[in-house]
Amino acid sequence: MAGLRVWSVLVTGANRGIGLGLVRQFLGTPSPPAWVFAACRDPKGQRAQELQNLASKHPNLVIIPLEVTDPASIKAAAARVEEHLVGSGLNLLINNAGITKLNSLDAETLENMTRIYTTNTVGPLLLGQAFLPLLKKAAQGSPGSALSCSKAAIINMSSYGGSITSPSGWDLMQIVSYRCSKAALNMLTKCQSLGYREHGILCAALHPGWVQTDMGALSQALGTGCLLSSAPQPAVTVDASVRGMLKVLSSLAEKDTGTFLDWQGKVVPW
Amino acid sequence: MAGLRVWSVLVTGANRGIGLGLVRQFLGTPSPPAWVFAACRDPKGQRAQELQNLASKHPNLVIIPLEVTDPASIKAAAARVEEHLVGSGLNLLINNAGITKLNSLDAETLENMTRIYTTNTVGPLLLGQAFLPLLKKAAQGSPGSALSCSKAAIINMSSYGGSITSPSGWDLMQIVSYRCSKAALNMLTKCQSLGYREHGILCAALHPGWVQTDMGALSQALGTGCLLSSAPQPAVTVDASVRGMLKVLSSLAEKDTGTFLDWQGKVVPW
Repeated sequence: MAGLRVWSVLVTGANRGIGLGLVRQFLGTPSPPAWVFAACRDPKGQRAQELQNLASKHPNLVIIPLEVTDPASIKAAAARVEEHLVGSGLNLLINNAGITKLNSLDAETLENMTRIYTTNTVGPLLLGQAFLPLLKKAAQGSPGSALSCSKAAIINMSSYGGSITSPSGWDLMQIVSYRCSKAALNMLTKCQSLGYREHGILCAALHPGWVQTDMGALSQALGTGCLLSSAPQPAVTVDASVRGMLKVLSSLAEKDTGTFLDWQGKVVPW
Repeated sequence: MAGLRVWSVLVTGANRGIGLGLVRQFLGTPSPPAWVFAACRDPKGQRAQELQNLASKHPNLVIIPLEVTDPASIKAAAARVEEHLVGSGLNLLINNAGITKLNSLDAETLENMTRIYTTNTVGPLLLGQAFLPLLKKAAQGSPGSALSCSKAAIINMSSYGGSITSPSGWDLMQIVSYRCSKAALNMLTKCQSLGYREHGILCAALHPGWVQTDMGALSQALGTGCLLSSAPQPAVTVDASVRGMLKVLSSLAEKDTGTFLDWQGKVVPW
């Protein structure tokens, strides 16, 4: 990610899978960010052990407690991040946290639909709102007017499964609640790109690829969009997916705001 | 609507605007349906007065109480419709009920996002599930295997405002909660088309045009997608919009299931 020089980044759902992979690779670059904020629900819990180990070695990694469905938690997280940044802005917000449930069309419920929408779609909206002042500050503090991820950006982790044009993997799994939430997240990304452009903030949706997570459980894997390919494809490792996405992020420019790209930079149809 | 011969149809949000217009035109055709079920929240209330007047003149019009955000109410509505159909199926389910709230991107809330999603997206999912047995019955009782609205169909009332490719009217109104709910409704329509094709049920999303309602209030008008045109366009009357949509419905065939069309039959990009 030669071109991606980010001073500060926040990743949600950072304790596992692709979120953890993003944190690792940000920390491992030759010129790592001054601040990597890794947000997760329970920073002290067993499932954040790897994040805790990383934090003990990297003083620029800050673990932030965050429940993306709770507006108060989001506001508290933004306040904590602001304290660390002491007057500077946040360059990059990566809305990676997401959930799914393996339901058929017939078995979807009101409860499941709204629960998944709240996490996958409403969470990224509220995070964008709460971190807007810090993103604006980063944009104002960055030279030049062209949009880029090094300046200020919101990246929403979407999925091929949310492509209405071609809702991959239907025969494998129907997961209507997940698909609807990701189509709505894509719309949110477009809206954020229109609303935040004047503030110098780039907004894009990414599909991480068909990712092998080390979690094993299908539902967790799905949270990052894996196994939603319509045809059997070689699975991608978390490392390769993240490496690809960071390369894509480094290349994003003015023309890419409001778009939906995969981990290799290919445009995904809405 | 020469080609649209429907034996039974249910319209939600039928007490005003486009819903009421659909009911009127179904009743006014030379060969009206044997059953027109007009569903609305409060059939005995002041806002259902026009529907009550129509029902007093048309014995084939049945007003059904329905709150589309309440699974129990949806089940009760399906049971009532089934009683009237005495063994026959329902040909056409038109998910027309919808709401909006004029918010800016910055002012959207968790509450507003989930409330509008529940009505505009989850409601049509639950209605599809509850009426599936009656739709299947209609499909089975209809000659030939080709999909059509005369056989069995679910029509979801969407909007240009839910087109991610071109989210019309952004400068006029941001209404992110509405746009996200309609993008998700489009995804639901695609999922229903994939899931219900084997049962002989056609599923499509419609944009009703930039409609002049007689309600006056912008928020109510928006519920049916009006004023979401990106450029000033001559507004369409409810009558013209409904006439156009019924013509479109009469022409829908196998190739149209899972598509998004406007009231003139033009494909709307996702």
